[in-house]
Amino acid sequence: MVYLTRVEHFNAAHKLWNTEWSAEKNKEVFGKCANENWHGHNYEIHVTIKGEPQPETGFIFNAKRLSVIIKEYVCDKIDHKNLNMDVDFMAGKFTTAESLTVAIWGQLEPVLREEGVALHSIKLYETPRIYIEYFGN
Amino acid sequence: MVYLTRVEHFNAAHKLWNTEWSAEKNKEVFGKCANENWHGHNYEIHVTIKGEPQPETGFIFNAKRLSVIIKEYVCDKIDHKNLNMDVDFMAGKFTTAESLTVAIWGQLEPVLREEGVALHSIKLYETPRIYIEYFGN
Amino acid sequence: MVYLTRVEHFNAAHKLWNTEWSAEKNKEVFGKCANENWHGHNYEIHVTIKGEPQPETGFIFNAKRLSVIIKEYVCDKIDHKNLNMDVDFMAGKFTTAESLTVAIWGQLEPVLREEGVALHSIKLYETPRIYIEYFGN
Amino acid sequence: MVYLTRVEHFNAAHKLWNTEWSAEKNKEVFGKCANENWHGHNYEIHVTIKGEPQPETGFIFNAKRLSVIIKEYVCDKIDHKNLNMDVDFMAGKFTTAESLTVAIWGQLEPVLREEGVALHSIKLYETPRIYIEYFGN
Amino acid sequence: MVYLTRVEHFNAAHKLWNTEWSAEKNKEVFGKCANENWHGHNYEIHVTIKGEPQPETGFIFNAKRLSVIIKEYVCDKIDHKNLNMDVDFMAGKFTTAESLTVAIWGQLEPVLREEGVALHSIKLYETPRIYIEYFGN
Amino acid sequence: MVYLTRVEHFNAAHKLWNTEWSAEKNKEVFGKCANENWHGHNYEIHVTIKGEPQPETGFIFNAKRLSVIIKEYVCDKIDHKNLNMDVDFMAGKFTTAESLTVAIWGQLEPVLREEGVALHSIKLYETPRIYIEYFGN
Repeated sequence: MVYLTRVEHFNAAHKLWNTEWSAEKNKEVFGKCANENWHGHNYEIHVTIKGEPQPETGFIFNAKRLSVIIKEYVCDKIDHKNLNMDVDFMAGKFTTAESLTVAIWGQLEPVLREEGVALHSIKLYETPRIYIEYFGN
Repeated sequence: MVYLTRVEHFNAAHKLWNTEWSAEKNKEVFGKCANENWHGHNYEIHVTIKGEPQPETGFIFNAKRLSVIIKEYVCDKIDHKNLNMDVDFMAGKFTTAESLTVAIWGQLEPVLREEGVALHSIKLYETPRIYIEYFGN
Repeated sequence: MVYLTRVEHFNAAHKLWNTEWSAEKNKEVFGKCANENWHGHNYEIHVTIKGEPQPETGFIFNAKRLSVIIKEYVCDKIDHKNLNMDVDFMAGKFTTAESLTVAIWGQLEPVLREEGVALHSIKLYETPRIYIEYFGN
Repeated sequence: MVYLTRVEHFNAAHKLWNTEWSAEKNKEVFGKCANENWHGHNYEIHVTIKGEPQPETGFIFNAKRLSVIIKEYVCDKIDHKNLNMDVDFMAGKFTTAESLTVAIWGQLEPVLREEGVALHSIKLYETPRIYIEYFGN
Repeated sequence: MVYLTRVEHFNAAHKLWNTEWSAEKNKEVFGKCANENWHGHNYEIHVTIKGEPQPETGFIFNAKRLSVIIKEYVCDKIDHKNLNMDVDFMAGKFTTAESLTVAIWGQLEPVLREEGVALHSIKLYETPRIYIEYFGN
Repeated sequence: MVYLTRVEHFNAAHKLWNTEWSAEKNKEVFGKCANENWHGHNYEIHVTIKGEPQPETGFIFNAKRLSVIIKEYVCDKIDHKNLNMDVDFMAGKFTTAESLTVAIWGQLEPVLREEGVALHSIKLYETPRIYIEYFGN
């Protein structure tokens, strides 16, 4: 079993906000991340798949094709967007890094499975000092 | 003459928008950066000062003090903020990286001059692939 | 299960030294790392916790609070210190990266457990080319 | 159990090519990577070993010795080389990052085992955006 | 005057070789870089332009357009290529980083000048530890 | 005129201390950097030379030879050392990054001049967030 990771980037705005709470409670819990006028990040995403190198190519999967899939199903939908307002697959969810990582798994896993590829993990850097990893369960 | 650089970070939301243009014209010129619901970045700022090492300390200026000044006059005002809406020193300006860099110079230069320190340059990374440098004229 | 990592930094001096050995033996085994007058590093520490995102916040744990804990129980005790001489939780231990990583786990795990948080791993970079990972057993 | 990683570098030329296919088929499958006159990369390799810190040193293994082994059995054989033409342990293999990573495991694992060291993983960056991990099975 | 830099990447094979010298002399002078079967690098290029922010946009030049120009006139011609064999603008030249940087300036400067943009410098990383800067004279 | 930079590393211990001051005064001015038992850093040094590419090689100077010189005249003297106690060319000087950068220029400039090479600048990272540049006057 060999693991291949492809790294991509996107930039987005968001705020951390529980719509059932008052503004005061949101600021108490989420601090600066609850700025009502938004803030944003340069996100870096690492998509890791696993499999056996194929006898005809030595690839477990074409990394260029993997990049195209990540762009189509993830980056094109969230790059230069507002995660709370503009992204269908984040509707009704918190836009924490945890939540976004799980949602990105949900976007990619079925598409990759249909291509016969096993998704292993999503790693998402929100800043150079904070990152999330998710393995699907 | 020795040059000392201190690096700091902040995260912010913005959009590129000329208020005298239609939405169509803004999107034509600024592309994805004109998303009306904002996007954002992890900015990295390099503040470079210059001077002679002082005979009593070997410092041209205390880097810890420089960090405190950058935080007070820049980061505290823009970190986790919306550059178009929340930042007094950006009012009425474009929030391009160019404009922001020149505005940060305007924030820091008078404060540093009053401390007897010569500001040499501001370098601002908007993304790992785009950065601006400004030397004050 | 989602994994959240927070990265922090500290700078410290140390030497690798077995007090039961002669200086010659120490130099033979530890090489340049046994310089009697010390050397030092910029350490980078990655603290990874795991858990379920909480329904009220979307956080598995507040990353800001995690940062405060790491600073209080680790960085404040070892930053700008001599690992062999100044650090209570390293007393009587080798100051290898291996030893330091295990000791940092011992500092953080009980505190995090008391906050209801499961510590998953400590990753410690001694230099950009040497790093240690420890998972608690 | 503690994990120690040592990072090394090498530069090499290669092309992705299935010798049983026509040039057209190779270009269709491998794209730009099938340029007949070669292209190349700065590879970064992370070699991770695992074990218990030894009571006399606090090391699981001397990182300097690990570096010497990686250089002797890997880097000296492939640095500034053509992976398709010049490297004995790649003969008859694809020079994909997957294939190269598995071959590097094959080079290092027996040597480390003879030194009493357990190899845990090889991580190979082909570019800053594509990397492979292999754990030996 | 404000300086804007755009960073791009390409991968290429090359060898350092003086065609008027014997193989022995080439190996004596260029060392491992004279491997006859080539080696290669992941190059990183920083293209810096300078100018005044324009009153209608706050841009000195559209960074997206700059990226398109760099790709068309540089990256598309050398990415996944052999610098000694495949690149018209390197014909008859050494493929040292120095030579390549000057040649890239020659590719970009006239195109940018025609767009009304002043090219300030080309910075080229051949490896993370070796880079060249050129300012046009 | 072309500029070539070679990057090298070293690790060292130091403390910031004015021997004419009391311990209290040292701690007031230098803060944590005045810990009497030392602290340390992974330093990164960028040595930039300038010149014309030579007609026989395309090099302004052999980067491998430059690396050997930096190691002999700088790194071998300060790597894994105590900058206040062990380094002849720092005797009687502050071990601030400013002071160390100027002293490294003093080590390298005469040696490079004798080889016919013009030293342009020394850039020294003390941490990823603090760096010094010196151009020789």
